[in-house]
Amino acid sequence: MVKATRMPRNEAGIETALGVLKQRFGERLNTGQAIREQHGHTTTWIETQAPDAVVFARDTGEVAEIVKVCAAHKVPVIAYGTGTSLEGHVNAPAGGVCIDLMEMNKVLAVHGEDLDCVVQPGVTREALNTHLRDKGLFFPIDPGANASLGGMAATRASGTNAVRYGTMKDNVIALEAVMADGTVIRTGKRAKKSSAGYDLTRLLVGSEGTLGVITEITLRLQGIPEAIRAARCSFPSVDAACRAVMATIQYGVPVARIELLDEMCVKAANAYSKLDLPETPLLLLEFHGSEAGVAEQAETFASIAEEVGGNGFAATSSTEERNRLWKARHDMYWACLQLRPGAKGIATDVCVPISRLAECVGAAQAKAEELGLLAPIVGHVGDGNFHCSMLIDMDVPHEVEMAETYIAWLNELAISMDGTCTGEHGVGQGKRPYVVRELGEAVRFMGAVKAALDPDNILNPGKIIAE
Amino acid sequence: MVKATRMPRNEAGIETALGVLKQRFGERLNTGQAIREQHGHTTTWIETQAPDAVVFARDTGEVAEIVKVCAAHKVPVIAYGTGTSLEGHVNAPAGGVCIDLMEMNKVLAVHGEDLDCVVQPGVTREALNTHLRDKGLFFPIDPGANASLGGMAATRASGTNAVRYGTMKDNVIALEAVMADGTVIRTGKRAKKSSAGYDLTRLLVGSEGTLGVITEITLRLQGIPEAIRAARCSFPSVDAACRAVMATIQYGVPVARIELLDEMCVKAANAYSKLDLPETPLLLLEFHGSEAGVAEQAETFASIAEEVGGNGFAATSSTEERNRLWKARHDMYWACLQLRPGAKGIATDVCVPISRLAECVGAAQAKAEELGLLAPIVGHVGDGNFHCSMLIDMDVPHEVEMAETYIAWLNELAISMDGTCTGEHGVGQGKRPYVVRELGEAVRFMGAVKAALDPDNILNPGKIIAE
Repeated sequence: MVKATRMPRNEAGIETALGVLKQRFGERLNTGQAIREQHGHTTTWIETQAPDAVVFARDTGEVAEIVKVCAAHKVPVIAYGTGTSLEGHVNAPAGGVCIDLMEMNKVLAVHGEDLDCVVQPGVTREALNTHLRDKGLFFPIDPGANASLGGMAATRASGTNAVRYGTMKDNVIALEAVMADGTVIRTGKRAKKSSAGYDLTRLLVGSEGTLGVITEITLRLQGIPEAIRAARCSFPSVDAACRAVMATIQYGVPVARIELLDEMCVKAANAYSKLDLPETPLLLLEFHGSEAGVAEQAETFASIAEEVGGNGFAATSSTEERNRLWKARHDMYWACLQLRPGAKGIATDVCVPISRLAECVGAAQAKAEELGLLAPIVGHVGDGNFHCSMLIDMDVPHEVEMAETYIAWLNELAISMDGTCTGEHGVGQGKRPYVVRELGEAVRFMGAVKAALDPDNILNPGKIIAE
Repeated sequence: MVKATRMPRNEAGIETALGVLKQRFGERLNTGQAIREQHGHTTTWIETQAPDAVVFARDTGEVAEIVKVCAAHKVPVIAYGTGTSLEGHVNAPAGGVCIDLMEMNKVLAVHGEDLDCVVQPGVTREALNTHLRDKGLFFPIDPGANASLGGMAATRASGTNAVRYGTMKDNVIALEAVMADGTVIRTGKRAKKSSAGYDLTRLLVGSEGTLGVITEITLRLQGIPEAIRAARCSFPSVDAACRAVMATIQYGVPVARIELLDEMCVKAANAYSKLDLPETPLLLLEFHGSEAGVAEQAETFASIAEEVGGNGFAATSSTEERNRLWKARHDMYWACLQLRPGAKGIATDVCVPISRLAECVGAAQAKAEELGLLAPIVGHVGDGNFHCSMLIDMDVPHEVEMAETYIAWLNELAISMDGTCTGEHGVGQGKRPYVVRELGEAVRFMGAVKAALDPDNILNPGKIIAE
């Protein structure tokens, strides 16, 4: 494991707060080691820093109560969803109380006419879509994991559909949140747009629990499209695939998904998902619209692909075939692990202007080879966003060091290309130094906002803002 | 005129700062009464509060210099674009220095492959679109006025195209801004998405110059659609028109524009723009897409409209006819003024969930009649947003009072319908009390953000946050 930053613990405060919370919540205040460690453990290579206690909150009032007790004693509060973040977001470097929000899992309202819904933070995206299905509606954001919508809002999640439907910043209409002093606020109403003052909604989206604990989310929904068509196309090189992506976006084809798998990923997918794809770079696509619309989109893409040397274009309207393709895409992490059994998969992501994508992916592949790393690449390339999953033997210090070198190099490269060190993984503990490299003086003003809204630094301390 | 809130003036500071700035900028520091009053005057009924001086800044460095001088002496700084805001946004209730940004009017870069551009704040939306035309690109946000892009970002502007392309919050990728201490920050890179910390971009968008002075804007662009088709359809009632809108949005028709004109507006348009429309509620639409796509959209809308009793549906691909329709829509303000020559047009706007739109518009019409007001209604109804333009004889105190009563009542009604007191006009001075009604405790946290980023309250004081 990679060492996480330490922070001083307020032992006296923690003891007092735990005492008060024990009286209030009794057995519901969990202090067992297993449950605590589980709540610091995520899909990351950063070591686990467990909280001192975990409470499963049942409603906003309880969250506010817990925050007030912690505020009174200056004790950290860490909000927790499904624990699928990647950069140590839920670690407790100064200890404190973890609020697990997964029991707050009700869909509170669906307003079909307004294409919105109101959910508690513990509703997962799959649960929401199951709930919506018979209403002809869906929520499009899909970060891969079956994450909680509270966590997705808190980390400004996106994923495969973002090229068409945007990220969480575009799909959260309003939030209810418990602020650092325990005050419950609502950042907006259900109007589709508003110019009523500072955009607290989008300030909280992506704030990773450091400015408030999200307790209710009003989300924008979409009608399930009349027609959905999936497609795939192979390319002689990453460069050719990226040129096809660029032309598709520029041409205004409203692709719902356009995903790149590099050669190594295609090999992994063939082996793991029993596919028979040509082992060259691949684009996977999905088109949403009317029957005529998706046919037109698929045709336009096919001719663009052909122009840059694409081959084996195949489109399908069969739900079964489509699910098979996307399951292979979603299983990519597990498929890649099979390229080197026993290795740990270390994921990092960057996002660059699409004109620099081919160059960035090409350089990333070359650098991995130079450092002797296996680092397959998949990408939400319509947004210029891609992921490298290094396969590392964590018992070999040299490999860990090479992986750290690679991540630092890749983040710097993306920044130098006018891109970002984190397209969708957030900052957590891991990306803090790169955010400073990327945004410079602006980070000081983020710090000022944090200090203003959370003067005692109790909300998820040690994340986003580098100390 | 309606009285604006007064604020105490820092006379000594203003005198000193003006002296320092005079030495630095010479004749470019304008203190003549006419130019000062022009820079406090906007399209509003709130009285003008002129600044003490106006400087036309030429670059970011100059803006930073001016802000630093003002910060040193605790003197207000008001950023100014085209002066087309509606709620007293650029008034100087405590005096101070107005920075006119209209000489910073360069398009700095257009990245066609990435569908983005970088502009200075004084570029107007029309100037940008003229610049982009031969590149096959356009910038969609159209608030009606030929506003500056800096002003549009600062006020989170939207307008007719927002139903398809979103508001400024969705179309600003990153900003450069001068903060209250004179520090120049950049809030993001050019990547299409990022999860690198707090969303300072969207915190500044809509902050109305109270958190920073925007000096550079990276904007998302669109390809000019292959086909554009305009259409109009009359309806027996506002209710029927709103039901057509609701069904169109729910059905997922990607309308680029869908505008409501009530009976009174249609009468005004017929008279002013020499049209011959049936004098019943009207929807004006625009469809963007491929040839086949726009035809399909128009057909879908036509059959929806027919179902709810729409009549006289007419679509056109002729640019000339389309421009004629939209010119009539854009001239609505002037057309309405002709309904009562000599009257002043007082515009207010609200935005509600689309399911409440018919009820809200209907109630607004009835209330105006009850109060004896002429208040024609136009609306960006695809977003649930509409405007009332009361025609008031400002010399009759009772009329002014009735208009104030009406605005207060309408804002409360929108809020009670889970909507907002300002869909796109911003807060300025005029809407401050309603924002508190709408967002309650959240406004206190807006105040905390303001105090953190501008501790001496020098940036456009007296706006957004009620004292």
